[in-house]
Amino acid sequence: MTGPDRLSLNTATIKHADLPTAVELAAGAGLGWVGLWRDRVAEVGLEVAAKTVAEAGLRVSSLCRGGFLTAADEDGRRSALEDNRRAIEEAAALGTGELIMVVGGLPTGSRDLVGARQRVADRLAELAPYAAEHRVRLVLEALHPMYAADRAVISTLGQALDLAAPFDPAVVGVVVDTFHVWWDPELPQQVARAGREGRVASYQVCDFNLPIAADALLSRGMMGDGVIDFAAVSRMVAATGYAGPVEVEIFNADVWAAPPGEVVRTMCDRWVDLVAPWI
Amino acid sequence: MTGPDRLSLNTATIKHADLPTAVELAAGAGLGWVGLWRDRVAEVGLEVAAKTVAEAGLRVSSLCRGGFLTAADEDGRRSALEDNRRAIEEAAALGTGELIMVVGGLPTGSRDLVGARQRVADRLAELAPYAAEHRVRLVLEALHPMYAADRAVISTLGQALDLAAPFDPAVVGVVVDTFHVWWDPELPQQVARAGREGRVASYQVCDFNLPIAADALLSRGMMGDGVIDFAAVSRMVAATGYAGPVEVEIFNADVWAAPPGEVVRTMCDRWVDLVAPWI
Repeated sequence: MTGPDRLSLNTATIKHADLPTAVELAAGAGLGWVGLWRDRVAEVGLEVAAKTVAEAGLRVSSLCRGGFLTAADEDGRRSALEDNRRAIEEAAALGTGELIMVVGGLPTGSRDLVGARQRVADRLAELAPYAAEHRVRLVLEALHPMYAADRAVISTLGQALDLAAPFDPAVVGVVVDTFHVWWDPELPQQVARAGREGRVASYQVCDFNLPIAADALLSRGMMGDGVIDFAAVSRMVAATGYAGPVEVEIFNADVWAAPPGEVVRTMCDRWVDLVAPWI
Repeated sequence: MTGPDRLSLNTATIKHADLPTAVELAAGAGLGWVGLWRDRVAEVGLEVAAKTVAEAGLRVSSLCRGGFLTAADEDGRRSALEDNRRAIEEAAALGTGELIMVVGGLPTGSRDLVGARQRVADRLAELAPYAAEHRVRLVLEALHPMYAADRAVISTLGQALDLAAPFDPAVVGVVVDTFHVWWDPELPQQVARAGREGRVASYQVCDFNLPIAADALLSRGMMGDGVIDFAAVSRMVAATGYAGPVEVEIFNADVWAAPPGEVVRTMCDRWVDLVAPWI
């Protein structure tokens, strides 16, 4: 199955389009899936979002995002748990089992990376039963180490798997996002390990563009525009037996400025050339 | 020994000063060492550089830099080896045993990270006998993964140690540079391993500033200005028994714009507060 029906359009890739437009473009291009951000869902409401996706014959590959679990104070802990419970409920209502978790960086002014990482472990343990109850998997996302301080203290796939280890693979999994992990010398071993441990919950593809954008968050690029060898990473993921959707999530000022329909066409062309043959 | 005599001023920290100025400022502040970039040495000539440092009562902690070993073509291979032999000779002439190696990124247009990493291993094997002959250590620098494509395909301390493993620790070592490795979940284990394997050749401190600078190379900050816990990393390095100089190398537009004397004073103050107690 390497047709576009395996592709998923993440709404962040066409940031300025609303959810109905994203769904229409995805369905029109023959995609099988969409990946939804919570803000796009909130704009139309949970029920309408679920209905719009289903009526177009699509499924939701993942909901972005839960996480931000690193607050050091009790108020921060409580509100993070509350927000993540809402995200779990939303994922379930949208019919996806995969809630992407961007776990958060250092609290403002803190340099205690070890402590922040420990709090992620502690709060996963608090959330896991609620996720299991809703048949939603908490999908840990290792973010590129350049975001370790301000976005996510999980910096490698190996570390994500270590954090996932105490939990049932049906409840805590990992996402392989090429942008975040392509550089990792341990990648082949850790992707294989994720497969053995039954934790590959999502495969996301986008490129790592150079130079790094002035706003470092926006360096994600269309496949083929950057430095990543998609054949190499896709082969690793395929070898785990992963047969789920392949999601494209791009934060990039130029991509956002382009007409959404054109972005989706380019995405499909690049998929055919650079990813589909290997997955 | 936690006085400023253990500190080393890398000439890149005061980019716009010439070598005699850097030496004068370092000696005047009671430092014991300077770290030299090859361009600053070349400006005054090798003999004058060595003499200037020695007459000020200083020693050279390291020479920056050899490396850029990843070219895929025969011309590129040959000129890299030639340039690194010159760098080895220069290090020896300057009386330092430590040649910092920034190994290079992907050749233009290439996405073959595995191949580039293999070429680093191959060329180290070609250079090691020449380095040993000159009693100069090739000091592998793991660079932050955000530079994996364009600066150095060595992205973690563990990977640097794996590459060093086939060689005598007196010939191939590693540098622990806080900016590049602070985020690594494996850092405690890998610093300890570097100690056990006798490969800690240099300890370099500077901070990781946020937001990442528009030119990502310039995000290195004065200790205390960013997110790094210097106590944590310095304790790890101290526990290895490392008793050598601690070098400060900062690429930062604001630091470069400040008067060099002021930069050196700030560096000494931050050393006393943030690093010296733990090393």
